Amino acid sequence: MLVPFDEVKPLVRAVLDGCGTPAAAAGLQAEILLEAELRGLPSHGLHRLPRLVRRIHQGLADPGATGEQVWQRPGFMSVEGCRGLGPVVGAAAIDALAPAARHNGIAIAAVRNSNHLGMLAWYAERIAALGLIGIVLSTSEALVHPFGGRRAMLGTNPIAIGVPMPAAEPFVLDLATSTVSMGKIHDHALKRRAIPEDWALDADGEPTTDPKEAMRGSLAPFGGAKGYGLGLAFELLVASLAGSAFAPDVRGTLDAEHPCNKGDVFILVEPLSGSGHAVADYLAALRSSPSTSPATPVGIPGDGSRARRRAALTRGIEIADAVWDQLTSLAGAPA
Amino acid sequence: MLVPFDEVKPLVRAVLDGCGTPAAAAGLQAEILLEAELRGLPSHGLHRLPRLVRRIHQGLADPGATGEQVWQRPGFMSVEGCRGLGPVVGAAAIDALAPAARHNGIAIAAVRNSNHLGMLAWYAERIAALGLIGIVLSTSEALVHPFGGRRAMLGTNPIAIGVPMPAAEPFVLDLATSTVSMGKIHDHALKRRAIPEDWALDADGEPTTDPKEAMRGSLAPFGGAKGYGLGLAFELLVASLAGSAFAPDVRGTLDAEHPCNKGDVFILVEPLSGSGHAVADYLAALRSSPSTSPATPVGIPGDGSRARRRAALTRGIEIADAVWDQLTSLAGAPA
Repeated sequence: MLVPFDEVKPLVRAVLDGCGTPAAAAGLQAEILLEAELRGLPSHGLHRLPRLVRRIHQGLADPGATGEQVWQRPGFMSVEGCRGLGPVVGAAAIDALAPAARHNGIAIAAVRNSNHLGMLAWYAERIAALGLIGIVLSTSEALVHPFGGRRAMLGTNPIAIGVPMPAAEPFVLDLATSTVSMGKIHDHALKRRAIPEDWALDADGEPTTDPKEAMRGSLAPFGGAKGYGLGLAFELLVASLAGSAFAPDVRGTLDAEHPCNKGDVFILVEPLSGSGHAVADYLAALRSSPSTSPATPVGIPGDGSRARRRAALTRGIEIADAVWDQLTSLAGAPA
Repeated sequence: MLVPFDEVKPLVRAVLDGCGTPAAAAGLQAEILLEAELRGLPSHGLHRLPRLVRRIHQGLADPGATGEQVWQRPGFMSVEGCRGLGPVVGAAAIDALAPAARHNGIAIAAVRNSNHLGMLAWYAERIAALGLIGIVLSTSEALVHPFGGRRAMLGTNPIAIGVPMPAAEPFVLDLATSTVSMGKIHDHALKRRAIPEDWALDADGEPTTDPKEAMRGSLAPFGGAKGYGLGLAFELLVASLAGSAFAPDVRGTLDAEHPCNKGDVFILVEPLSGSGHAVADYLAALRSSPSTSPATPVGIPGDGSRARRRAALTRGIEIADAVWDQLTSLAGAPA
């Protein structure tokens, strides 16, 4: 169903308030879930809220925790997440990191034991809004098989990169190193649609076009051996810096039974060359370069997301009936 | 032809000595070219040497320059490359950066106006040998079209990531964000072999299987829209940090007529979590996880490169006759 944004927002806040989330934390957690919905990324949106509420009730997520920040070096902060909400611990880390990045030129935070970050673009945008370049990495449960492998051994290991632009919205890239998300496989299963053969393997490691088989199996890395290499490198970077678990041992972003033991890394850099206007000119040249189809100009990452966001703010958010029912029930509001 | 390694090495040194390269610089430049040959990456090997010699003779490369290093911040070094050799300026930057990375936890160098870096894995290995994590980026001439585009607008924008391992060789990933290298297209042209349809476009932006048409056209980004996004993000990162030219304006890595105006970025991080043994265990688990073909176990990036290197040290390096003839002629040695 299509719900006006202004109607959804207070419901989400009510749900978070209802389980004892402090106002500032509820604001951050609500914003990132709603931003995912606005941008057409429901896999990182409201369907995660009921699970988060269960995690809070079971003590697996502490809505009052912002993380214990320890400066190991003047530019290196280790964060013990203390089961805090991902966006709360992440935003606190960025806020603490920004002055160090301005002073040192670059600074890094490595976070463990905080909950699911959600959509990484949100963090890259926060960093860009501070006038800094941001690189954000996070890990997950084992969902992706190695190139040439049959079993899920890697996380979806997304990366976001944000570059601030003078007098314009920042450049923001946000992608997982799997070909598609497990959410997209679930979506095909719900709609009883076959999936392309190169998206996933079944539980035996054989190619499948049946989304239900794929849900018990593993996702393909994007871009073959290269995408596998990047996903693996991100896994090692995060674990080497955060001391978090490796994918086969990661729990807690998809369940309501286990503490969340994945890791996150935030790198903030001051863009010191002063070439912001040259960056803008280059992006303009890219957009106006010839495209394969006259109807579809060459795009820049983030374009589609921004267009969907604008449309959803006007038209409303498309929310699955089941998700809407859960949300209104949790909020104690009439459905 | 197959030439013993010990026979090639002094020739390369003789060529570099012959155009006035100081001994330390010649050692670094020779090593990286030879390492590329040993690892089966001739596109970054000896065929680049005659062009480099011409660049030195024409004043486009200064074999005595190590770059002017300016610390903009305690962890951010800007390097004016002063037309120095890529590996000489790069190695000097890494050496200066390492103590800052240990002190701050992380440090970055942004380099402009130095010559072609060559194989990025070499730098990641140098950084890992210092016990540090390394991320290396470099840009190039416009060779890659945007996803959905028809014209070369991006560099091949490679990335290398190195992670030191306790009592083992480091993990080293090194990949370009194009599907294949232009060198591979050249190789197919030489051998009069067609290329797959998804590798490249011709000069009109149409798909082609003719490598000669592809050489006048553009390479596809790897992994579709995601690989395009990463290549673009790396282009923006390097330009924002180094103040170097964007791909359409880059010259000097493929010619002997222009100063080289691409940029390079080196990020060094101290792996503070102390999880080195967990990393090694995880890589071992990956290798022993089930593979699609029993004859080919799951690999780790760098495996193939190391195997080829071992074989070449014993059997010799396969060098194209034309490259060998140029090399011996430049060295003034009997062919």
